[in-house]
Amino acid sequence: MSLKNIFYPNSVAVIGASKTKGKVGYSIIRNLKNFKGNVYPVNPKYKNLLGMKCYSSVLDVEDEIDLAVIAVPNIIVPKVLEECGEKNIRGAVIITAGFSEVGNYELENKIREIAKNYGIRIIGPNCLGIMNTHLDLNATFASIFPPKGKVSIVSQSGAILDAILDIAPLLNIGFSKVVSIGNKVDIQESDLLEYFIKDDDTEIVVLYIEGLKDKKFLKSAKKLSRKKPIIALKSGKTEIGKKAVKSHTGALAGEDSIYEAVFKEAGIIRAYTFEELVDLIHIFSTQPIIKSNKIAIITNAGGFGVLAADACVEHGMKLANFDKSTISKLKDVLPPTANISNPLDIIGDAPPERYEKCTELLGKDKNTDGILVVLTPQEMTKPIDVARSLVKIKNNCREVKNKPLITSFVGGVSVKDVKGYLRRRGIPSYLTPENGVKALSRLYNYSLMKVRKDYDEELEKIKEKFLKIRDKNRDYIDNLLKSPNEYKAKKLLDFYELPVPECYLAKNENEALEFCKKLGKCVMKIVSPEIIHKTEVGGVIINPDNPKKAYNTLVNNAKKHDPNVRIEGVLVEKFIDEEKIEVIVGAKRDKIFGPVLMVGLGGIFVEVLDDVSFGVYPITREFAVDMIKDLKSYKILEGVRGRKRKDINFLVECLMKIGVIMDIHEEIKEIDLNPVFVFNDGNGGCIGDARIII
Amino acid sequence: MSLKNIFYPNSVAVIGASKTKGKVGYSIIRNLKNFKGNVYPVNPKYKNLLGMKCYSSVLDVEDEIDLAVIAVPNIIVPKVLEECGEKNIRGAVIITAGFSEVGNYELENKIREIAKNYGIRIIGPNCLGIMNTHLDLNATFASIFPPKGKVSIVSQSGAILDAILDIAPLLNIGFSKVVSIGNKVDIQESDLLEYFIKDDDTEIVVLYIEGLKDKKFLKSAKKLSRKKPIIALKSGKTEIGKKAVKSHTGALAGEDSIYEAVFKEAGIIRAYTFEELVDLIHIFSTQPIIKSNKIAIITNAGGFGVLAADACVEHGMKLANFDKSTISKLKDVLPPTANISNPLDIIGDAPPERYEKCTELLGKDKNTDGILVVLTPQEMTKPIDVARSLVKIKNNCREVKNKPLITSFVGGVSVKDVKGYLRRRGIPSYLTPENGVKALSRLYNYSLMKVRKDYDEELEKIKEKFLKIRDKNRDYIDNLLKSPNEYKAKKLLDFYELPVPECYLAKNENEALEFCKKLGKCVMKIVSPEIIHKTEVGGVIINPDNPKKAYNTLVNNAKKHDPNVRIEGVLVEKFIDEEKIEVIVGAKRDKIFGPVLMVGLGGIFVEVLDDVSFGVYPITREFAVDMIKDLKSYKILEGVRGRKRKDINFLVECLMKIGVIMDIHEEIKEIDLNPVFVFNDGNGGCIGDARIII
Repeated sequence: MSLKNIFYPNSVAVIGASKTKGKVGYSIIRNLKNFKGNVYPVNPKYKNLLGMKCYSSVLDVEDEIDLAVIAVPNIIVPKVLEECGEKNIRGAVIITAGFSEVGNYELENKIREIAKNYGIRIIGPNCLGIMNTHLDLNATFASIFPPKGKVSIVSQSGAILDAILDIAPLLNIGFSKVVSIGNKVDIQESDLLEYFIKDDDTEIVVLYIEGLKDKKFLKSAKKLSRKKPIIALKSGKTEIGKKAVKSHTGALAGEDSIYEAVFKEAGIIRAYTFEELVDLIHIFSTQPIIKSNKIAIITNAGGFGVLAADACVEHGMKLANFDKSTISKLKDVLPPTANISNPLDIIGDAPPERYEKCTELLGKDKNTDGILVVLTPQEMTKPIDVARSLVKIKNNCREVKNKPLITSFVGGVSVKDVKGYLRRRGIPSYLTPENGVKALSRLYNYSLMKVRKDYDEELEKIKEKFLKIRDKNRDYIDNLLKSPNEYKAKKLLDFYELPVPECYLAKNENEALEFCKKLGKCVMKIVSPEIIHKTEVGGVIINPDNPKKAYNTLVNNAKKHDPNVRIEGVLVEKFIDEEKIEVIVGAKRDKIFGPVLMVGLGGIFVEVLDDVSFGVYPITREFAVDMIKDLKSYKILEGVRGRKRKDINFLVECLMKIGVIMDIHEEIKEIDLNPVFVFNDGNGGCIGDARIII
Repeated sequence: MSLKNIFYPNSVAVIGASKTKGKVGYSIIRNLKNFKGNVYPVNPKYKNLLGMKCYSSVLDVEDEIDLAVIAVPNIIVPKVLEECGEKNIRGAVIITAGFSEVGNYELENKIREIAKNYGIRIIGPNCLGIMNTHLDLNATFASIFPPKGKVSIVSQSGAILDAILDIAPLLNIGFSKVVSIGNKVDIQESDLLEYFIKDDDTEIVVLYIEGLKDKKFLKSAKKLSRKKPIIALKSGKTEIGKKAVKSHTGALAGEDSIYEAVFKEAGIIRAYTFEELVDLIHIFSTQPIIKSNKIAIITNAGGFGVLAADACVEHGMKLANFDKSTISKLKDVLPPTANISNPLDIIGDAPPERYEKCTELLGKDKNTDGILVVLTPQEMTKPIDVARSLVKIKNNCREVKNKPLITSFVGGVSVKDVKGYLRRRGIPSYLTPENGVKALSRLYNYSLMKVRKDYDEELEKIKEKFLKIRDKNRDYIDNLLKSPNEYKAKKLLDFYELPVPECYLAKNENEALEFCKKLGKCVMKIVSPEIIHKTEVGGVIINPDNPKKAYNTLVNNAKKHDPNVRIEGVLVEKFIDEEKIEVIVGAKRDKIFGPVLMVGLGGIFVEVLDDVSFGVYPITREFAVDMIKDLKSYKILEGVRGRKRKDINFLVECLMKIGVIMDIHEEIKEIDLNPVFVFNDGNGGCIGDARIII
């Protein structure tokens, strides 16, 4: 079902319309006064309302109604929604609160059922409403209606929407669709993202997210981000009461890390603070995409030039090397004392013409792909005249128009009105040069974002193969998955063609001896469901002289640690003697996003430095490589200081295979491979230790 | 010589005064019109100027002159300065540019000499001038004169000063002394810091620094920060053309890391961006110091509450647990649907009285030490009335007054004037709740700053001892310091009681065999000035079976690497078989600050992860401990996952001793101990490899 009835209705009924100022039902009716279609107030208390005929029920309205806006007390919502269904209304915005957000799940479920029965698409409940500026449709109780524009916004907080709408006129940010999404009983973010793909009035999508319950989100976001930038602010990074977890992966894969991975995979530009969100909307809604990270900075204040240059380093931007011809032209424009470099210090006394001419020359400079103009009010400075010059050159010079041009007029009293002048004319003005550089850098990041495939042939092939393996050995595998210890986990991995060292489970000292003889140099490890960190309880012996004695030592150590310990045996495993690096590979099943994969440098460093990287299954090979490259410690895998490059390809395959195993075995909650040994490039690797949690 | 003549003059001469609008000499005279003392324009061209008598030279003025403001062309400066000297003027501000900043060192030196001869203290040249608002003294050519207040500011950029002065009235930031410090031919930052210690009109000091040339800076800053907060923005983090360096320490101890260490040691609060600088001045100049990190957040918008809570986690602040009695009182004030928690969501319809009452209750709550009030303009919100209520409760309630109270009214159109209303009444208003939390956190950081001792008895004792050792063995040590290789470096360290493994320098294969026999398990390493990274050229053999063969292998590998290599022998060293962690300890002599010490986790991790920490000699034991604790990898030294805690005390002593060695041997440029082996707690450690660069 399309959302057209919601965003492009011909007629709107307001159920719970009110005559009383201050009531939500009043504000909605008032806000709809400019709407181009028909409005039908519904409230049995009134015959008419604000000069309009008022109906007792939607059923009394003779014309067709596309959208119902519902603002009646929560317990009446089911009844009026039923009536909407009978009236064949296909879209509803439920403003009313008092549902799941206060624990009233039953009432919310009732609504869900009614909606399903009648095929009504619903926004809310517990929301501010929706807007479509292009239809002058303000179906909210917010007092501010923003300028028309191309930004569509979906927010899980009405108040944050209010704040953005209040800021919008000052920054000249124009909106298309405004959606306060509320409790999301029906319409989720993904429905809206899908809708925006084809909505010609939407060019940029902004999200404020507190928490998703939307399994289709990643897929829809991927599709949309290929065509239009998506900017998201996600709050709730704080994880209250992080519970004791059994695996490293569980401990490390906090909610926020998973969202971070989802955003990265989806190609969403993430804002980390509200200020950043606004700064990003400001640049994305007014400027063309930047072609490279080479920018020019024009400033009348050396100090701010240095600060802007610092920000370039911090945010991955480059100061362009101006073309020779540009340099010679700049010399003609600037006073002889000026130094032609980047940042270009045009000196404290810079008049408007100098700003204009330099902006033009750098707009035409082929080595420069973006321009930041900095101004500080000094004795001779005329901020408003400089602003006028910039607007003029932007309008008159094609090359300037085609590159991002942003400003930072740093000051207070002398520049505050000038900022508005610039913004109203499509030139963003940032609080500081550093914020400006940061905004340009995010524009650049967007240009770098890879179009992520949804489908990876290699992954599909692995899955096909693994499904065959699974189906052929169903019973055996099911048995391995019953409370899997390290031995069983490794057997399972072996089945799925993940290399594990040759290993046996010794049940007594004689078996231990036998296996040790067979393997040569080996490692012996205690196997017990009670013991997670084996080394800490003396549960590992490397290359034992006397395997029988070693067996008993391991068992005794385990008992010392916990007298009630259940011992399933001692794993005897071939010692891995190759040049290697230890890595951790893990997977965790997320309620919303499904299997989440993790990779990081192993040993104690992963725990101390938290240097791990996440991806949401299904991942492509390309994304798996990016996950590994995102590690701060990636250089170690590449080989530093004369050490050999490690087999990154092996690690990539590990990630893909673990993902598929999670996919085809839904009973697995977490997989923790720690360490995974990665050998030198070309030599593969193998899994040193494995835990599978059901 | 005191700076009193500069900041509290009774009379000021303006040399180069002008009648022409737009000229610097005109602006200065105009700016001095409110000055309470006498002003004497000096310019041979005029008989009078703006209604005042104008003199051809200061020598023609009959009265005494305390301060000369000089704005004549650069080549005339020496002449007029001589005249100032003859006139017995003890303070001068040289506005004129065209000195060292354009390479004209000779002219600047001339000024320095004249100043020294006559005992004139000089600010500048190449500056905007100085202000003392408490005297209505504006001896600058800036058009803005800020409100009176207690912030004194010293800036290396006139334009950044301009920007701050322009912002000041909007944020109601009042200033005391304003100094554009220019080329610093005489007066340095340290002179001003010392002056501000006793200046009763100064309560907060703000610095904008591009680069110091001030050896006394650290000492003066330490003294001042004990009494008054110092906030600094340092630009120029970018290091252009980082040269190839010989040691790890050299590579890692970039200029910015050293400044970071200086600020930390001095107790300076560092701002990292211009926005942060302004945000910090805003809170420090209006709010009392916060007693703990426990704050309350009051908000009419749940979403911003979550974002503020996220910011608390990020910036180390805690959400206070309200006292039971507070909670019951809050229940009386809030509607029944409200949830009493922190952030305290007082709901979208919150009227001013609810804001007022909650602020009062949390002001009185003994578990809360700071309050952030968040407002978003919603349908029912009356921002200006809320602001009035907050001002009222702040003025009427002692408990509220005594805690930091800041606001963030998030929005645009509806709140922009209200922010000014709050700020003018001493309540800071931040752009976003996140920025507010960050500002509170910096207030809290200041309260935590340790009073750093200048003097450490333990360090002095080490120095005393080492000086004795040095003087007794002067010749031998001098010899070791002549192009020191690893062997000599270790011998030197051994002299200064730093533990090194027993080692010998073998000059031929027979000696190698002899030493190996003597030592048992040992390591052999090539010793050559051409070979820095020994492992990379096959220059290390551990526990050789055949020492003679090993000797030849090492020599041949070296020759393979570089046919012209100079081989000084093979170091034969006892193998260190203890449980240990590898650490890097280094020192580098900085032009300005002298010996800078470095510590970090060793191995390849220090290079890949850059996890190192710096300190400027002389360091106290306490600071050395803090340096180590500042490492991200500190947990590894503390012992993670059942591993034993390492001997941190040994590492502290290493740092102190290396510092003293740098102190008493000025010929040493860099020391690089990598790795240093740190054993388990109580067992000390020893130095695995050492490089000393002369």
